[in-house]
Amino acid sequence: MLINAYGALAGDKPLEPLRITRRSPGAHDVQIDIAYCGICHSDLHQVRAEWAGTRFPCVPGHEIVGRVSAVGAQVSGFKVGDLVGIGCIVDSCKHCPECEAGLENYCDGMVGTYNGPTPDEPGWTLGGYSQKIIVHERYVLRIRHPAEQLAAVAPLLCAGITTYSPLRHWNAGPGRKVGVAGIGGLGHMGIKLAHAMGAHVVAFTTSDSKREAARALGANEVVVSRNAEEMAAHAKSFDLILDTVAAPHDLDAFLGLLKRDGTLTLVGAPSTPHPAPGVFNLIFKRRAIAGSLIGGIPETQEMLDFCAEHGIVADIELVRADQINTAYERMLKSDVKYRFVIDSATLAA
Amino acid sequence: MLINAYGALAGDKPLEPLRITRRSPGAHDVQIDIAYCGICHSDLHQVRAEWAGTRFPCVPGHEIVGRVSAVGAQVSGFKVGDLVGIGCIVDSCKHCPECEAGLENYCDGMVGTYNGPTPDEPGWTLGGYSQKIIVHERYVLRIRHPAEQLAAVAPLLCAGITTYSPLRHWNAGPGRKVGVAGIGGLGHMGIKLAHAMGAHVVAFTTSDSKREAARALGANEVVVSRNAEEMAAHAKSFDLILDTVAAPHDLDAFLGLLKRDGTLTLVGAPSTPHPAPGVFNLIFKRRAIAGSLIGGIPETQEMLDFCAEHGIVADIELVRADQINTAYERMLKSDVKYRFVIDSATLAA
Repeated sequence: MLINAYGALAGDKPLEPLRITRRSPGAHDVQIDIAYCGICHSDLHQVRAEWAGTRFPCVPGHEIVGRVSAVGAQVSGFKVGDLVGIGCIVDSCKHCPECEAGLENYCDGMVGTYNGPTPDEPGWTLGGYSQKIIVHERYVLRIRHPAEQLAAVAPLLCAGITTYSPLRHWNAGPGRKVGVAGIGGLGHMGIKLAHAMGAHVVAFTTSDSKREAARALGANEVVVSRNAEEMAAHAKSFDLILDTVAAPHDLDAFLGLLKRDGTLTLVGAPSTPHPAPGVFNLIFKRRAIAGSLIGGIPETQEMLDFCAEHGIVADIELVRADQINTAYERMLKSDVKYRFVIDSATLAA
Repeated sequence: MLINAYGALAGDKPLEPLRITRRSPGAHDVQIDIAYCGICHSDLHQVRAEWAGTRFPCVPGHEIVGRVSAVGAQVSGFKVGDLVGIGCIVDSCKHCPECEAGLENYCDGMVGTYNGPTPDEPGWTLGGYSQKIIVHERYVLRIRHPAEQLAAVAPLLCAGITTYSPLRHWNAGPGRKVGVAGIGGLGHMGIKLAHAMGAHVVAFTTSDSKREAARALGANEVVVSRNAEEMAAHAKSFDLILDTVAAPHDLDAFLGLLKRDGTLTLVGAPSTPHPAPGVFNLIFKRRAIAGSLIGGIPETQEMLDFCAEHGIVADIELVRADQINTAYERMLKSDVKYRFVIDSATLAA
């Protein structure tokens, strides 16, 4: 079927209205009428070809929520009318150790929601800046939030799980001191989630003006990372620092704040590497620098249920499709609290 | 008491015979007549002031073995004549969480065997390139190897524990694939220990000529790290890679060989940082770069007992004190299999 979408024809061109083709639902497929789609920083990196391998036309978007509008004959878990979500993954090999462990995010055959290989036209996946999407039921998430929160649920599908998964993996919870660096789309979710998990949460920001906002999100303390004195007061005290900053920056400043066996986990993906961290900070307290990529499908469902139970959604600003390019510019200036979400109804025009 | 030692008066001067003062044993002290002392790459970094903060005269040496020649009134664990060792630690605060956990190596008050703060003359510790050493019994290790192996036991006190501790911490053992990068003083011990723990051991070397030697040490496979094809054959397959290379080098080449949740653990300490590793290698398989610093006292005893039980010692070349400067030059050219050990009897002259 032909549907409306918004995407770019080249890395140096703005996004514009496009017509794209979606496959008809197969036996295991769920067809979703998209209601909202969040705008992730990855969308911008990919569509502007700042990461290698972008294929055009490129339709970004992997924070997708909507209602089921058709299901294949073999689909048992979903029915027409269900509130559902699609995150960053729309396919994987389904039989490797990672898939069998429900860690499809680490499957070598993982297919991203956009720019991933697919037999469908045009040969790569097209994402959620569009009216509909058809996905194998394995990768469809159930949304248990009230329908009126749906727009603010969208960013949970990437920003939510990208911070939830490492917080769980490195045991954020009561008695643990957890830092969240960067108070943007990912960071504001990290603060909310770590707080709900019961950790002592310290937000790091470069901007003194974000202090109150960070506290309102659930941070117990806020540290301006450019203030050496404030940083020094937290030396060797963190179990985990979740670093959501997507621009290259000094990792040593955060490594020094970890206690023995602490981990600095990177979830931001800068297009050029961070400055080389020193080895002594790692050796002297058996610290680690790690990375984490979104999360698997079962954990994404767990995260959505956790958020529904704790009343957690993203803080969003709703935009029309024709405001996407402007939203990108504002995102680059961190001028958003904290996530833009596209009202997919505006694609109909 | 005044004893003979070998050390340097400045970073740009060779080591030479010195006379140094040792304290008389206190109530909890053990006095050791040093039989042998290994030469560690750290000795060279420190004595040449390549690391910050070297105080002169500097007497290096922290791979010390010998016999107890006197004990303080309160010492219960050791008696005159016992075979004992001293590693990298001669004091610590004794009451922090790290000390209470037997991880004195991570205590902020850890005092190194040389160049560490002490009330003794001259105000910093003087190491094992000397005839005797006096150390609080807490930091004295018991040696259960046969006495005739004593010289080859010396390197276990640093090279042995520095590799044993991370291998244990990251669960080297049956069913685990463990890499050891660099086949020098540390690396050759890492191969022997990982093999004895039951892991599948792959040695990485830059030199094709070391293949047979690495196999003889216990490596199941040997990879020449400059051979891209050989490296690619091991992509995404390691649980742990122990990186003992002390010179700055490309970490990404090793990160790509780790499976999901694998760890690259650095135990070499270059005087300048490694080139900045990319973030994607970390994120895409939830990999980590970590560091590890020697080991705690209980674990060092465990390592010595493990080695005695498995018949493990270092491969050494015995040298006289007046050959130390030459040994340093040869060590810089990797012209040693695999550790120089000083025959401390040659200090008497």
